[in-house]
Amino acid sequence: MRCSFAAVSGFLALIGAVQAAPKAERLRLPIAYAQKLAAVQEATAPAAKAVVQDSVANASQIDPSYAPTVTAPKDNVFASLTNDEAAAVIKFCHEQDSLNLTAAENATAWDNQITVVDVLMPNKTDALAYLDGDGDKPKRYAVVTVSHGASEEPYIEFIGVGPLPVTAETSLVDLSWLSTKGQARVHKYNADEDAWGDWFAEIASDIQDITKDLINGTVTGSDDDDFDIWGVDPLWHRDGRVVQWVTFWAHVSEDTFGYDATTLLPQGLFFRADTTGREKANWAVTGWLYNDQFFASTKEFRAAWASGTLKKTEQTNSPLVASYEDAWYGTDRVGDAYPDDERLPPVEVAPDGQRFKVDEDRRYVEWMDFSFYFTFTRDTGLRLYDVTYGGKRILFELGLQEAVAHYAGNDPVQAGTSYLDTYYGFGPYAFQLVKGYDCPAYATYFNATFHAAEESKTHRDAICVFERDMGGPIQRHSSGSYISVTKDIALVLRTVSTVGNYDYTFSYTFHLDGTIETKVSASGYIQSAFYAGNEEYGYQIRKGLSGSMHDHVLTFKADMDIGGTKNSVAKHAVVPVEVDYPWNDGLKRNTMHLQRSYLDQETGFNWGGGTHSLLLIVNKDETDDFGQPIGYRIMPSIGNGHSLTIKDSPNLLNSAHFTQEHVYFTKQKDTEPRVANAMNSVDPAHPIVDFGKFLDGESLDQEDVVVWFNLGMLHVPDQTDLPNTVQTKAQASMLISPHNYLPSNPARRSRQMVRIDYGTEGKASKLHTFGKKVRPEGTIDAAAAYPNLWSYAGDEGVRKFPYDPDHPFNETDSIA
Amino acid sequence: MRCSFAAVSGFLALIGAVQAAPKAERLRLPIAYAQKLAAVQEATAPAAKAVVQDSVANASQIDPSYAPTVTAPKDNVFASLTNDEAAAVIKFCHEQDSLNLTAAENATAWDNQITVVDVLMPNKTDALAYLDGDGDKPKRYAVVTVSHGASEEPYIEFIGVGPLPVTAETSLVDLSWLSTKGQARVHKYNADEDAWGDWFAEIASDIQDITKDLINGTVTGSDDDDFDIWGVDPLWHRDGRVVQWVTFWAHVSEDTFGYDATTLLPQGLFFRADTTGREKANWAVTGWLYNDQFFASTKEFRAAWASGTLKKTEQTNSPLVASYEDAWYGTDRVGDAYPDDERLPPVEVAPDGQRFKVDEDRRYVEWMDFSFYFTFTRDTGLRLYDVTYGGKRILFELGLQEAVAHYAGNDPVQAGTSYLDTYYGFGPYAFQLVKGYDCPAYATYFNATFHAAEESKTHRDAICVFERDMGGPIQRHSSGSYISVTKDIALVLRTVSTVGNYDYTFSYTFHLDGTIETKVSASGYIQSAFYAGNEEYGYQIRKGLSGSMHDHVLTFKADMDIGGTKNSVAKHAVVPVEVDYPWNDGLKRNTMHLQRSYLDQETGFNWGGGTHSLLLIVNKDETDDFGQPIGYRIMPSIGNGHSLTIKDSPNLLNSAHFTQEHVYFTKQKDTEPRVANAMNSVDPAHPIVDFGKFLDGESLDQEDVVVWFNLGMLHVPDQTDLPNTVQTKAQASMLISPHNYLPSNPARRSRQMVRIDYGTEGKASKLHTFGKKVRPEGTIDAAAAYPNLWSYAGDEGVRKFPYDPDHPFNETDSIA
Repeated sequence: MRCSFAAVSGFLALIGAVQAAPKAERLRLPIAYAQKLAAVQEATAPAAKAVVQDSVANASQIDPSYAPTVTAPKDNVFASLTNDEAAAVIKFCHEQDSLNLTAAENATAWDNQITVVDVLMPNKTDALAYLDGDGDKPKRYAVVTVSHGASEEPYIEFIGVGPLPVTAETSLVDLSWLSTKGQARVHKYNADEDAWGDWFAEIASDIQDITKDLINGTVTGSDDDDFDIWGVDPLWHRDGRVVQWVTFWAHVSEDTFGYDATTLLPQGLFFRADTTGREKANWAVTGWLYNDQFFASTKEFRAAWASGTLKKTEQTNSPLVASYEDAWYGTDRVGDAYPDDERLPPVEVAPDGQRFKVDEDRRYVEWMDFSFYFTFTRDTGLRLYDVTYGGKRILFELGLQEAVAHYAGNDPVQAGTSYLDTYYGFGPYAFQLVKGYDCPAYATYFNATFHAAEESKTHRDAICVFERDMGGPIQRHSSGSYISVTKDIALVLRTVSTVGNYDYTFSYTFHLDGTIETKVSASGYIQSAFYAGNEEYGYQIRKGLSGSMHDHVLTFKADMDIGGTKNSVAKHAVVPVEVDYPWNDGLKRNTMHLQRSYLDQETGFNWGGGTHSLLLIVNKDETDDFGQPIGYRIMPSIGNGHSLTIKDSPNLLNSAHFTQEHVYFTKQKDTEPRVANAMNSVDPAHPIVDFGKFLDGESLDQEDVVVWFNLGMLHVPDQTDLPNTVQTKAQASMLISPHNYLPSNPARRSRQMVRIDYGTEGKASKLHTFGKKVRPEGTIDAAAAYPNLWSYAGDEGVRKFPYDPDHPFNETDSIA
Repeated sequence: MRCSFAAVSGFLALIGAVQAAPKAERLRLPIAYAQKLAAVQEATAPAAKAVVQDSVANASQIDPSYAPTVTAPKDNVFASLTNDEAAAVIKFCHEQDSLNLTAAENATAWDNQITVVDVLMPNKTDALAYLDGDGDKPKRYAVVTVSHGASEEPYIEFIGVGPLPVTAETSLVDLSWLSTKGQARVHKYNADEDAWGDWFAEIASDIQDITKDLINGTVTGSDDDDFDIWGVDPLWHRDGRVVQWVTFWAHVSEDTFGYDATTLLPQGLFFRADTTGREKANWAVTGWLYNDQFFASTKEFRAAWASGTLKKTEQTNSPLVASYEDAWYGTDRVGDAYPDDERLPPVEVAPDGQRFKVDEDRRYVEWMDFSFYFTFTRDTGLRLYDVTYGGKRILFELGLQEAVAHYAGNDPVQAGTSYLDTYYGFGPYAFQLVKGYDCPAYATYFNATFHAAEESKTHRDAICVFERDMGGPIQRHSSGSYISVTKDIALVLRTVSTVGNYDYTFSYTFHLDGTIETKVSASGYIQSAFYAGNEEYGYQIRKGLSGSMHDHVLTFKADMDIGGTKNSVAKHAVVPVEVDYPWNDGLKRNTMHLQRSYLDQETGFNWGGGTHSLLLIVNKDETDDFGQPIGYRIMPSIGNGHSLTIKDSPNLLNSAHFTQEHVYFTKQKDTEPRVANAMNSVDPAHPIVDFGKFLDGESLDQEDVVVWFNLGMLHVPDQTDLPNTVQTKAQASMLISPHNYLPSNPARRSRQMVRIDYGTEGKASKLHTFGKKVRPEGTIDAAAAYPNLWSYAGDEGVRKFPYDPDHPFNETDSIA
């Protein structure tokens, strides 16, 4: 999931790495090849690419995305740090001698430096006291990620800073209470990855005669290198050694028309590097693999190659193409055009403006009977807080927690790869949305800011919110004399994060019946494998290429509060039974029963093969008119929940125990706010947060229950994943829906319904429109439905230390 | 699923019943009550109901639903019978002395009559010879359903008539080859349902003192009766006796403002009727049930009531309301209005017209790389044939087969009810769609005609086809320097059938990646149960009312042809394994394998708890460039497949063996065109088609494979199902998607993509629009986006015998 960004810095553009500004690319195309591409581009581009200079200066006089304002009832205590807050925190940290910090801009791997600054979410207890009553606004704290490079045993530590704003009261705060191991730090095994990169180039350079022969290119450490070299994530640990397998990936520069397609270009040559410790002198190559042949040393590998005993494969996976259009990994339009496709397809418009209200400063939205705050963090991107329905809180918190992509393969890089994507972060890669494509043109857009490497980066228009006609009724009934239909009008909150090769679209959809859908859709480039003997791990999708199969598990937190924080987890199973009814003369009949029970204690749950069990978050102390506890149901919609296929992953170890079941229920604790820490993958055996320790048998009987649910999919790519995966198949969603919670279906309150009475006369006799406007006046401004895409602008950055808020700069490279 | 229509004729408005024209309603509201309602209506209606006289005479000068025409490559050999064809067939049948027919209009239960005339689908072998080569157009036949009432053992028989048009060559054709029991006839156990209805009224009348006391109303056989009386479906058979439990349902007339809500108004009083044979003298009441107390005779029941030993329930379920707005079972808007809801929500428009082509006569559609024919039948409604993609057939046939709704309860009516909805038919209830609500205003609409009870009924605008922006990308990729996004533009073919209380929306969606989604969404009124001791069968949802839990299983046929008719069924399972890799020093690692196998013979399959097995229809004889058989995958999308919870249903017996697994695979045979016959529920022990007999162990190795997949949901209604079920939760879908079938993702051919190059300048540097129009000229006619709902017109009917095509009439009551 991170590989194409990894390529930016030549090896790994990691949060723990030293570079703040993007580094020059080490691995570039051969000059002759780049020249060839450039020549082709010049010759063919103008005619073929239809570069359009948009001539509409003022596409619309009225901004269609304007939403009425409202004042949120309370401050957003979950809000991201402002640029000023982040700057003040960084300045404060630099003044603390105990941290011995070097400015990120100047720091090396052997310095201490700040890598991330983010808001420390207030404890739920404090937040509720403020939101629900007269409690003080919770004191505001930052959490600072500090990379301690200045020792033989480098580590990453999370430190609190607060209260904010910075005053004489502000201090560094220990955060070990946030760790299941009682220590908010992790050994930074990858502290020297830049040095590793240089060393890998040396290793490759030493066998350039072999790579030229086997994979038709070389790495010499120059800007012209043909390949990037990187491999497993997380690093392996064995007998006290730090081990990693790496492989060669053809480098296609985005500066030419190369596309961000590195993960489609594995070359099938691997070596194992022991990078234990910080001294290059102690590092060693301990194996080579090519065409399923293993050699324990470079010497053995060279000998086999030199003697001709090395079995060569005829498969190759070359990026070389004659033209832009020929780039099989390219995403531009290609092939026979579809009929009529030059004409405009249907488009959604908002002829009457927005029907929701926002408090832009407080990041607060009101729509129909819903309201919520949202925020944005570096690790997990968009998060929702204090989601209310009908004036009552139903969710204290809703948002992504972690995303695992677990690969498999006959080669060690695929077999050894299990990305934990919050390591790279969903915030840094939540690029600006494309209006009219990612969200409707009329959506209301919000910026999203994160603070990393002592820089504040703002993605313009990275979050959108819009109403939408979902394309069919939410309810209807017709008879021979009348028909009644209500539109399924919903509110969608959406963001997209491209973590390396994969683009994840996250949509939270609010429906008129009180249902909230959490949905993830995946696209982007697959991470593929070189095709050599790996039939058991996927399909061949091109000459030399396998669609490396993998599991996606995206874990979400839903801290549900149904009628308050004291909740229980009900399981209502429907099971086949045989019954002796009083009315059937003693003859038993097969039927089914609804069996009600509770999950007594913290546990995981698998939905199994059907929808035969209902899982409900209920409040036993609040019942409906019939004595049934009020509740909300959680139920899979697209997909059926997901969990990892692989058991006891040797890659993930203790870092992702939340991936084994479809859903988990735990008791909320301020000390267990997240399933994982962003640094879990740095030392997966000893993570800062081990979810397995959340499951310690505590009661769920009228406790504050947190639901952790997994969305995902098993992905066995085939050729239709080239060049990009289609979201048609790669999506999953979960519903949270009122269940014995309301006295009737609240969609009935909507005016967006019609009833037509008709009969035998061959015409409608009455039309009931329920007090709403039936059509807009006159015409709809067509331009308003079509965005001016020239407004796409990339990110805005502000350097934090030294702080110069008046001089933002634009660049969109990753700072993670 | 049929109950509210059943009420139309007072008991059962069945296909096998004699009435053609709607009968007067036997069971009506008490006059005083009706007057009260009418008074309330008059007083409150104008102000409260916002009846709008639409003042826009010509909403649009250009019909937005106009689609360009195309000529289908071949005649539609699957087309419904024309009105003329149906009339000629009926006339021909009346001329056959062997049938001894009485005109439907005049027939009684003791006559022979035609109940349905439909097209007999051509054998696949004949159709393919015509479609693919120089074969003759298959001879056209009708299938006529004849109810033989003129004997002590009445039966329904299916008889072929052809070839058409009717000439001297035309004859009656035996259709026993279409039956798994070798006989296309079924004992018509329900021949005397009208007489039963009269008898039930007598029974109820005899205890009107008791019903007045227990359920506050009476049935005396007059037009003012308070209740409808009906019960189990199918009828029960025990020891050679025909047995049925029936119950009292409050009658709310649609003529007042009663709503079609009978299934929400069960009264909790039941009796068992033995209706064996055709002589009323032999019929008997063999039990009563009230508040879970059983009495073996009316005498015992009366004695218990008279003596005061009958335990009465305080629960009641009365329909009485003071006003329109007070009708808790009403679907009109009610309650506090949502903010801003009088304004128009977003709406989809087609500013550039339709981008698909239709042959309206031949019912043929072309869109992008897809084409298909469609037709419409009385039993199953909309069906697709000869679906091609990229010029090659992928489906010979796609469409609904049967819909089972299996209830459960502590009372015998719920326990005994398992609707087989094709008995009622999806064709008769595919009412006119509401433009702008069921489908976009700009959709292209088609009429749908069926022929029953010697009448042809045309539902105007019952089928819609439209393009739609699905609301997010089908593919995208962003990096730090460019972003590429393609819209998910899809074509939707949709119809809605309201079979009694439930509204089923069927959508077939075609995507640019070659995927077809089959989706069903359910709304309408639930069938509920009286609440008395049935906690094990659902939730209480109102005073006196239980949301009777039930399983929906909707079975679809997908006759897939991948690279021809010779196909195999591949199962590619992904399983956890432990592997000893050559590169890992003998240390085994946990990973997962793709295990490829084939389903050797006809079988069912359950998807189980995850998405860990891929099911593919492949052609072993046609491989891709890498030797992998080309294929299409079938995979659940919304939901996870569904099957009946109840084992060996005592209601369904041999009539629905297709409901036990998520999906079945059989070898295509011209003698096995459908999983069920519409009359299966008339004698479920001895159905005309028993799907279980399809599964006779035949090889699926490169044979013509048919996939039968089940969509559905377990429905445990709660209060939010009142008044209508919301489709948010009540939907399911299946994808059919290319898998190792195409060399790359065909969505890349779409012009509906954009690439924006951007970088560090804070603006877009290039915009690639791929030769398409970027926005329409000027303005969009707002009126065109909003339909004139006064055009809603109900059905058009033509009497067939005697045939008078020039005098259609309008009425929309069921003729089934």
